[in-house]
Amino acid sequence: MYKSEKGQYLVEFLPYIKEFYGNTFVIKYGGSAMINDELKMAFSKDIALLKLVGINPIIVHGGGNEIGDTLKKLDITTKFHKGLRITDEKTMEVVVMVLAGKVNKEIVLNINRFGGRAVGLSGVDASIIKAKKLLLEDVDLGLVGDVEEVNPDILVNLSKNGYIPVVSPIGFDDAGSRYNINADTVASSIAQALQAEKLIYISDVDGVLDTENKLISEIKIKDIDKMIGSVLTGGMIPKVISAKEAIENGVKKVHIINGKKQHAILEEIFTDAGIGTQIVR
Amino acid sequence: MYKSEKGQYLVEFLPYIKEFYGNTFVIKYGGSAMINDELKMAFSKDIALLKLVGINPIIVHGGGNEIGDTLKKLDITTKFHKGLRITDEKTMEVVVMVLAGKVNKEIVLNINRFGGRAVGLSGVDASIIKAKKLLLEDVDLGLVGDVEEVNPDILVNLSKNGYIPVVSPIGFDDAGSRYNINADTVASSIAQALQAEKLIYISDVDGVLDTENKLISEIKIKDIDKMIGSVLTGGMIPKVISAKEAIENGVKKVHIINGKKQHAILEEIFTDAGIGTQIVR
Amino acid sequence: MYKSEKGQYLVEFLPYIKEFYGNTFVIKYGGSAMINDELKMAFSKDIALLKLVGINPIIVHGGGNEIGDTLKKLDITTKFHKGLRITDEKTMEVVVMVLAGKVNKEIVLNINRFGGRAVGLSGVDASIIKAKKLLLEDVDLGLVGDVEEVNPDILVNLSKNGYIPVVSPIGFDDAGSRYNINADTVASSIAQALQAEKLIYISDVDGVLDTENKLISEIKIKDIDKMIGSVLTGGMIPKVISAKEAIENGVKKVHIINGKKQHAILEEIFTDAGIGTQIVR
Amino acid sequence: MYKSEKGQYLVEFLPYIKEFYGNTFVIKYGGSAMINDELKMAFSKDIALLKLVGINPIIVHGGGNEIGDTLKKLDITTKFHKGLRITDEKTMEVVVMVLAGKVNKEIVLNINRFGGRAVGLSGVDASIIKAKKLLLEDVDLGLVGDVEEVNPDILVNLSKNGYIPVVSPIGFDDAGSRYNINADTVASSIAQALQAEKLIYISDVDGVLDTENKLISEIKIKDIDKMIGSVLTGGMIPKVISAKEAIENGVKKVHIINGKKQHAILEEIFTDAGIGTQIVR
Amino acid sequence: MYKSEKGQYLVEFLPYIKEFYGNTFVIKYGGSAMINDELKMAFSKDIALLKLVGINPIIVHGGGNEIGDTLKKLDITTKFHKGLRITDEKTMEVVVMVLAGKVNKEIVLNINRFGGRAVGLSGVDASIIKAKKLLLEDVDLGLVGDVEEVNPDILVNLSKNGYIPVVSPIGFDDAGSRYNINADTVASSIAQALQAEKLIYISDVDGVLDTENKLISEIKIKDIDKMIGSVLTGGMIPKVISAKEAIENGVKKVHIINGKKQHAILEEIFTDAGIGTQIVR
Amino acid sequence: MYKSEKGQYLVEFLPYIKEFYGNTFVIKYGGSAMINDELKMAFSKDIALLKLVGINPIIVHGGGNEIGDTLKKLDITTKFHKGLRITDEKTMEVVVMVLAGKVNKEIVLNINRFGGRAVGLSGVDASIIKAKKLLLEDVDLGLVGDVEEVNPDILVNLSKNGYIPVVSPIGFDDAGSRYNINADTVASSIAQALQAEKLIYISDVDGVLDTENKLISEIKIKDIDKMIGSVLTGGMIPKVISAKEAIENGVKKVHIINGKKQHAILEEIFTDAGIGTQIVR
Repeated sequence: MYKSEKGQYLVEFLPYIKEFYGNTFVIKYGGSAMINDELKMAFSKDIALLKLVGINPIIVHGGGNEIGDTLKKLDITTKFHKGLRITDEKTMEVVVMVLAGKVNKEIVLNINRFGGRAVGLSGVDASIIKAKKLLLEDVDLGLVGDVEEVNPDILVNLSKNGYIPVVSPIGFDDAGSRYNINADTVASSIAQALQAEKLIYISDVDGVLDTENKLISEIKIKDIDKMIGSVLTGGMIPKVISAKEAIENGVKKVHIINGKKQHAILEEIFTDAGIGTQIVR
Repeated sequence: MYKSEKGQYLVEFLPYIKEFYGNTFVIKYGGSAMINDELKMAFSKDIALLKLVGINPIIVHGGGNEIGDTLKKLDITTKFHKGLRITDEKTMEVVVMVLAGKVNKEIVLNINRFGGRAVGLSGVDASIIKAKKLLLEDVDLGLVGDVEEVNPDILVNLSKNGYIPVVSPIGFDDAGSRYNINADTVASSIAQALQAEKLIYISDVDGVLDTENKLISEIKIKDIDKMIGSVLTGGMIPKVISAKEAIENGVKKVHIINGKKQHAILEEIFTDAGIGTQIVR
Repeated sequence: MYKSEKGQYLVEFLPYIKEFYGNTFVIKYGGSAMINDELKMAFSKDIALLKLVGINPIIVHGGGNEIGDTLKKLDITTKFHKGLRITDEKTMEVVVMVLAGKVNKEIVLNINRFGGRAVGLSGVDASIIKAKKLLLEDVDLGLVGDVEEVNPDILVNLSKNGYIPVVSPIGFDDAGSRYNINADTVASSIAQALQAEKLIYISDVDGVLDTENKLISEIKIKDIDKMIGSVLTGGMIPKVISAKEAIENGVKKVHIINGKKQHAILEEIFTDAGIGTQIVR
Repeated sequence: MYKSEKGQYLVEFLPYIKEFYGNTFVIKYGGSAMINDELKMAFSKDIALLKLVGINPIIVHGGGNEIGDTLKKLDITTKFHKGLRITDEKTMEVVVMVLAGKVNKEIVLNINRFGGRAVGLSGVDASIIKAKKLLLEDVDLGLVGDVEEVNPDILVNLSKNGYIPVVSPIGFDDAGSRYNINADTVASSIAQALQAEKLIYISDVDGVLDTENKLISEIKIKDIDKMIGSVLTGGMIPKVISAKEAIENGVKKVHIINGKKQHAILEEIFTDAGIGTQIVR
Repeated sequence: MYKSEKGQYLVEFLPYIKEFYGNTFVIKYGGSAMINDELKMAFSKDIALLKLVGINPIIVHGGGNEIGDTLKKLDITTKFHKGLRITDEKTMEVVVMVLAGKVNKEIVLNINRFGGRAVGLSGVDASIIKAKKLLLEDVDLGLVGDVEEVNPDILVNLSKNGYIPVVSPIGFDDAGSRYNINADTVASSIAQALQAEKLIYISDVDGVLDTENKLISEIKIKDIDKMIGSVLTGGMIPKVISAKEAIENGVKKVHIINGKKQHAILEEIFTDAGIGTQIVR
Repeated sequence: MYKSEKGQYLVEFLPYIKEFYGNTFVIKYGGSAMINDELKMAFSKDIALLKLVGINPIIVHGGGNEIGDTLKKLDITTKFHKGLRITDEKTMEVVVMVLAGKVNKEIVLNINRFGGRAVGLSGVDASIIKAKKLLLEDVDLGLVGDVEEVNPDILVNLSKNGYIPVVSPIGFDDAGSRYNINADTVASSIAQALQAEKLIYISDVDGVLDTENKLISEIKIKDIDKMIGSVLTGGMIPKVISAKEAIENGVKKVHIINGKKQHAILEEIFTDAGIGTQIVR
């Protein structure tokens, strides 16, 4: 019997589309997927598609390289402490320009080109992210902040009305200061505030790898503590810790996937096998 | 670069999903696609999927074979006039039982098994199809009817609330009679009343074939009259005439596709080439 | 002083109309009231009127005789076990045809003729009645089912939008089987799911009669157990037990009335004396 | 066959209730029906009932006798010109007290006692009736006014939310004056502003009588001009002229009925024969 | 730098407007502010303004002097017991006329002249204030009542739709009697039923004065009992007690201000210092 | 009589607040008002206040100086042609960073500090401003654009939900290019698309001055053509021409005011005299 191959592919997605209909996915977008042109286009299509099949994606983006490049062009030198950029007022101004201006608007434009209706916001807009200074014992990081409170009203409003919010990880406080906040943290906080079904980290690795460099498909949060220092090292540690916190606070599932693979996000969501590491209760 | 094959397939549907988002498709379901088990399952999945990606499908089904089978089992003999079954009251009762009972509920059950929320109705329910006796000069066809007026309120209400209406082609009149109406005609009338974007006839042939038996991909309604008697013959003539009437009254496009091909409806809708014949203004 | 006699009659209904405004009444329709033509018309008017004066009637119908008649015409013989028809797949097909096709659509048509906007559904439509096999120790009843779960969303939606749902007592399970369920049980389950104000059984007797054959106007549910075997016998026992269960699960009042009396339902609802037996907490 | 007499009466109203469902009726209430206690109770029940069966009644009341009585008790003497009370500021204050205070609140209280949710308003409230001085050539009538503009927003809002508006015929102008306006005129103006289905005048006579004192059941508006001076005399002339104006401006039908007959309004609305005179296009 | 003086004044109100946006204020209106023409205009403007800046004012008015004046003109003599007028049926009729007719409609007209959309109601309308006889041990006060239950639905409905309710302190009971109720009590009961942010008493004194006749700016409810008999005397005692009850039942703050001062209500609300006495938890 | 001075000031604004309630004002923000700290705070308060008193302000900002400063810091040199910066891709990137990043987010933060709920957008977000290349005969301006089409959906949605949109004048085209557009032009286009009641240009001059340097309070659009070259010179010419176009396309009134004066916008809106030049039909 003749069978439409394309139709066949499409109906294979049916159970997944049905399952996730009306769900909110918070997606941390960063790394190579935000740099390589082909990957940027693929990501934009993926997001536009998720919205059309009834999922509500909310994007939180990073922007590390771009900030460094612009600071360099402006001859502003900054110091780092344990990977965190010590941020004075002049640096902060550049952070805002790059994140909320350059990076955010490019993501928005790309998604819109594929039929999405993206709207770029920072944590300052509609007072989404109230922040506080990140306090370390030994050093003053300046305007590096942590999330104090998320006000997700506008994200809900925009999602409900068919828009795709794209959020820059900048916070504010009542004194009028703005803070540079880690994008993973912002994504996790927003996912918690929205009680999102999924929090997806798009990174530059396949996921969490075991000691033989093989991908671990699933991690239970109760096993995370003992994995720290063994299979979990470097930048993966804070990512997995914020994943754990998200799940403890109501997010259903966290995924870490490799943004270097085109359409990785669709393969992770719309197949049983998935492609990265998922972290569950 | 790694590229998710499945993801790639899915994003290819993006422009179509975007284009048809929120559209109403009236689908005449009949023939082999309603008999063969594998095709029935494929059709059910297709319809559930259309609903999930934002299209509002409305199904109108036929049921010719089933009616004949049941009449035969009940030892009721009927005569035909030019392909129309002369229908007395006793026969009409069987028509209603078979269409609104047997056939309709089976379609509903199958769609629901794949996550749709189908609701089976006849033209009597919520007074959807007001009918009148089909009058021929030479013969009294009994309770064979024609559509007088469509009241589509409940179809709109159900579609808007996430349900998939499945309609049996039975009409009523103010005197309390019920009429057996041709399903192609009912589908066309409902498509007109709803100003549907598409009216799709699922038949047992590939579409309209030319004199060399090659598929004609597109027919303009202005060319239909001169095609009658040449490429258009037999049962295809009333089908194409009701297609023409639909387009003249506001339906955007009519498709004739081969229900013997699995997922033909998805291939017709979600590819540029399509698979059958489309009739346009 | 001149006094409009008709007006006088109408205002006598005022306190009842006021009391029941916006209430949901689940009405089990069966027996002679569904067979005799004059009674059918009277019932249809009653239901149309209830809707117009602000009550939300939901009809659940039986169809015993019609099923037997059709099986006989089709030369299908079935056995009974304690009043329950052992139902194989072939028999089930006839049950669906007769209930959801013949009986349901006739009720719908009649109500609509008097200005109601009835919509006929089975428990399969919109997945209203999820069923399970009715398990007896000694015998396999085949596709005779019991209610597992009621999904009343569409009933609420239709009632709210001015329609009158008419439900055939057919259930489904996830494996795709359909079940023949006792209509009293379905009516009681739906009344519970909707937390209905009234559940009304239209039967062929005046109500529950005492040992001297006099009508008992009111029964408290705490007295039911001791009445079984004395005043409660035969088919009245399961009816009263399902009434008790309904009241224990939130239905306000259950009525058993004689459908052989024209407009019995109006007299029961709109007079203090009533006409049948009411069962209360 | 047993037939419930009460039920029978109720279903006789079915076609009328169906016909008028959701319609707006503006009812001018005055004369004996507003004085006699038994008639007052009957009227209140009638109005509460109309609301419950889906009609939106809006009451405009007069109050002639009560105004005269109170003026007399206060030793305020007034002159009349062609039946119109010449109204100075002091008199106007009494008019407002009697109409918006005494009469209005008594009507409201009575309707509420029978389960209606009446809300008393004057034309000053929510700026419903903007008025202008009624100018006569030969005499200054003081604060006797005519309707300049009706703002029916609050009447629509209250009706939609289940309330029954009861309106005193007092208008205002931008300079802060209040005007005493003929209640028939106000009822007609409101009926026009709401495009009401019916405007019903409750008077103290059976309707328009012919030269042999027999009731004329129906008058066409094209025949009104030639009836003036013959069958139409006295206070009936302005009443019929405002009826004509109402119909010319979109009101469907005007009724003149005898408020001395209990439940006359129900008999007029809910029977074919009616009881008074109806004026139609 | 040039600075717009008027603009400067306006922005000073910004924090207050922001704070009270969407809040409900119940305002007891009486005394000189209801008699003096200039004060009446100022009050009307104040109320219209409160509504426009997003506050929902609900007015409850008294009317003592006017009632006495009208009774006198009608030669009806009444006795007082501890400041309460012993009210027979004939007196009650005058109370209703004066409060719901004369006083209420004048307030409504004035507010509307400044662009408000006031709607005058009594406690009888929409059954807002169900009352009971105020029972004293030693004397029968007749139709003097106390609040039994407040049904605030219509007040919420009107406020939400942009109207300003103006309520006369008249109650009803199920037997059809009407009662004259103290306006302070009615205002407090409505404020409780609406869980109002503020209850504001407009009186003829600056507020509560201490033993040296100096204004007390703020009183905590825990201090009220010990103040009775010392700084609290005469008519101030019941006012402060109903204020205490209001706060104990959910009203945020009660204010007593001097209605003899023009725009006192604005000064109290829109400045930190305020102008009268506020009573708080 | 005591009169609250502050209250008096506030009620003077009553007629204006009433008049503009629910109106949309598009405000072009630029010049000194966007540079001086005191003026920035004053402007932020003004906007928060407008929103609270029921006006829907929509801000369009410029940013000329900031762009120049940043380009300079980055050692990017640009040429000008008749006041327009020739904009290559590298320059455009800086324009987006400065406008949508630095300037936009600072305005948003300041308004939010005074209780507004501002949301910063560019013309790229939600595809608000579709642009086309501004074509001059003699020179290629690069990515300097003109408005082709405004899609105001999100502005309406945000305004209706209590937010204050702040828009950067950047457009996009279907090929994915972004354009730098004159902020006066964008403000005028948005005002036309929204059929705004007012379009307000905040500039650095008092308004249009006559040949004796005296302010012209009002200009009719029919007089504009003959004023060009005489009283209208330099940058005022395009501003007044876009004002004329706005009024011809449905905007009610255009105002040019001096942003160097604190609260000029309030004085212009809330006083009869105003403070700048208004342009009317």
